[in-house]
Amino acid sequence: MATVTLKVEGMSCGHCKSAVEGALNKVKGVEQAQVDLEAGTATVKYDEQKTDLEKMKQAVEDQGYDVAS
Amino acid sequence: MATVTLKVEGMSCGHCKSAVEGALNKVKGVEQAQVDLEAGTATVKYDEQKTDLEKMKQAVEDQGYDVAS
Repeated sequence: MATVTLKVEGMSCGHCKSAVEGALNKVKGVEQAQVDLEAGTATVKYDEQKTDLEKMKQAVEDQGYDVAS
Repeated sequence: MATVTLKVEGMSCGHCKSAVEGALNKVKGVEQAQVDLEAGTATVKYDEQKTDLEKMKQAVEDQGYDVAS
């Protein structure tokens, strides 16, 4: 299991938090995703055998947010 | 049919717009609700025989936003 903190741009409210957490938690291999709205980050615990950073970024971007690389 | 523009505080993104419009459109007697995110307003076309300002304000506040009176 690994943990990564993504810098997510454009999250402004509780709905955004839910959208990003929901999208990340749906990625196969993600065990837990938690957004810190004030920090503008999403911290993700995931199984490196099953997913990777690219898939997580894509899930967030599909919700309309930018992920700083 | 009457039209009122509510000043809604705290809307920050497209999700907020959807939440407020959705809540207003569910009020019986509301024909059409439209949020202008930049202006921070919700303009509502409604039937005065079926609803009133208080019910519309309540619907918006139930979503977690303040309506300036």
